[in-house]
Amino acid sequence: MLKLTFARKLIAAAAVAAAVIAPAQAAEKTYRLKLAETWPTNFGVFSHPAREMAQLAEQMSNGRLKIEIDTANKHKSAFGVFDMVRAGQYDMGHSASYYWKGKVPNTLFFTTMPFGMTATEQYGWFYFGGGMDLMQKVYEPFGLISVPGGNTGMQMGGWFRKEINSVEDLNGLKMRIPGFAGEVLAKLGASPTNIAPGELYTSLERGTIDALEWVGPSMDLRMGFHKIAPYYYTGWHEPGTELQFLINKKKFDSLPEDLQKILMTAMKVSAYNMTIESHHASAENWFNMKTEFPDVQVKNFPPEVIAALKKANDELLVEAAAADPLAKEIIDSQTGYQKLIRVWTDIGERAYLNSMAEE
Amino acid sequence: MLKLTFARKLIAAAAVAAAVIAPAQAAEKTYRLKLAETWPTNFGVFSHPAREMAQLAEQMSNGRLKIEIDTANKHKSAFGVFDMVRAGQYDMGHSASYYWKGKVPNTLFFTTMPFGMTATEQYGWFYFGGGMDLMQKVYEPFGLISVPGGNTGMQMGGWFRKEINSVEDLNGLKMRIPGFAGEVLAKLGASPTNIAPGELYTSLERGTIDALEWVGPSMDLRMGFHKIAPYYYTGWHEPGTELQFLINKKKFDSLPEDLQKILMTAMKVSAYNMTIESHHASAENWFNMKTEFPDVQVKNFPPEVIAALKKANDELLVEAAAADPLAKEIIDSQTGYQKLIRVWTDIGERAYLNSMAEE
Repeated sequence: MLKLTFARKLIAAAAVAAAVIAPAQAAEKTYRLKLAETWPTNFGVFSHPAREMAQLAEQMSNGRLKIEIDTANKHKSAFGVFDMVRAGQYDMGHSASYYWKGKVPNTLFFTTMPFGMTATEQYGWFYFGGGMDLMQKVYEPFGLISVPGGNTGMQMGGWFRKEINSVEDLNGLKMRIPGFAGEVLAKLGASPTNIAPGELYTSLERGTIDALEWVGPSMDLRMGFHKIAPYYYTGWHEPGTELQFLINKKKFDSLPEDLQKILMTAMKVSAYNMTIESHHASAENWFNMKTEFPDVQVKNFPPEVIAALKKANDELLVEAAAADPLAKEIIDSQTGYQKLIRVWTDIGERAYLNSMAEE
Repeated sequence: MLKLTFARKLIAAAAVAAAVIAPAQAAEKTYRLKLAETWPTNFGVFSHPAREMAQLAEQMSNGRLKIEIDTANKHKSAFGVFDMVRAGQYDMGHSASYYWKGKVPNTLFFTTMPFGMTATEQYGWFYFGGGMDLMQKVYEPFGLISVPGGNTGMQMGGWFRKEINSVEDLNGLKMRIPGFAGEVLAKLGASPTNIAPGELYTSLERGTIDALEWVGPSMDLRMGFHKIAPYYYTGWHEPGTELQFLINKKKFDSLPEDLQKILMTAMKVSAYNMTIESHHASAENWFNMKTEFPDVQVKNFPPEVIAALKKANDELLVEAAAADPLAKEIIDSQTGYQKLIRVWTDIGERAYLNSMAEE
């Protein structure tokens, strides 16, 4: 009897233990996600957000969330990231929204726009000005979530072998400059082209092209353009290029809530960190370029060239807005927000930077 | 025999269960931290980082990390946060490093400095230029960890009832401007004072003071200064004011590793978010001020005034560096980093903002 009672107690204890273990074991389940990057292996600052995000997610989840990263060297499909995440072949991606404009035209607006917002202003738009909702409106129909993935900061206007002194100098200019900015230049008579990164240096050196834009000092140094093109023009076409984390929504929804929050926070902080690191790396790399090649000159496009580019850009935006109601909604939102926030950027940081530069 | 064997099996099962439960229960333990803010209740953007951090920490930890926040209305000791966290009366604080310069002079350098770095540049210094190590060197002897707590962005030079057209106009000027910037102004003959926030409006209205600085549009709108002072001068003295999270190190070290990582990440992302929100709120509030009081004028100090302020500031920094080796190490690090990164800020964002403003 005693033994039986003891046995019963043990059974009861074991049952309680089992009940306690069940949720604990569920909580201890490991979730594994696979992420595809658009970038090749060791691609400077661009390679950092996905890796930092994965590390933070694993540490914050005490190993319950593990994210494996494949670079383009592995999956061989740099511009297949959208499709692979959509199909569930990968759970996540790290890329840039404007790469998908051939498939989904409105994805164009969530990276950067010529004469658009700076990195800080654009984060303001994403997080406090309605940008995140509009981005989700564009990605939702494809079962995808898109969130900011790190900013390059101001991109430079590019490396030129001869000076641009007038709008006429753009006529016939062969320049590697893809996307919307290429269309803007085409309106002014230039011949924009796209060329694979590995062939850019030789194309510029041999005169196949007269000019090219890449990123800015943070990514340009390794490309070596400063060795063969003496003029480095300041930027207008990509004032705050935001990369992108893509997530398969069904997969995301299947994660426990705490891991969803961990994943979202890890992406957000890694994106912000890349933004800061880009500014740092551009400063450091520019110093190194200038030290090694003191003849490199920083140039501003003449005001009449900027005005002509801006006019061509505005015309293209009007066309885009007329073609599609959602495009119009996004363009109106961005234009309105930029107008509001630029006034403050000018009173605040621009006035300060100018006062210190004068002095 | 059978029963005994059964009982033994149950005992063995229970032992296994207990072994499994032990770490699971430890993992489920709830850690409660108390945080003291320097700010009163509902203090605009300043009130957001601690609350967002606490919410993220709780969500990411699935409720295992709970942070209770007391505002200064509760603990009645706005400037006692350093001491209370040091003593373990609170586990954390949200404040600003330069408030402690009376106790620990070198804490001055980790908020913002006159003619110093912008928010983005300073984050570069903190995270990629050695700033975090130097800050820890200052706080470690007090058993404290200090990390960035959110940036106000450019602070305005203040509200003035009459224009400043020359260095002579600063002579005898009664201005509310605390800290290092007050010392800079004093060198040029001004009479800097500090006045409790609640009395600022009346002091300016009655002419007890001629001018005052507070923050920028994000925080100034609610104070109403734009109703009684027509000139809003652009900034020089606090180009990127970073708030601070303080943590009692012993308490932090007692947390499990995953919760440490969650806490650190929640603080970091909340700080970045406040930086973006400040820029947004300043833009919005400036728009509202200007709409309500169209006569408010934004003014730049004349270049000769800026030059004189800069000279006085440089002299004070030389004195500070001569007085203490760690102060010298910090000043040298900041000065060197700012020189490196400002070149890029000027080529990148400043050139872009200027080109768009011209056009």
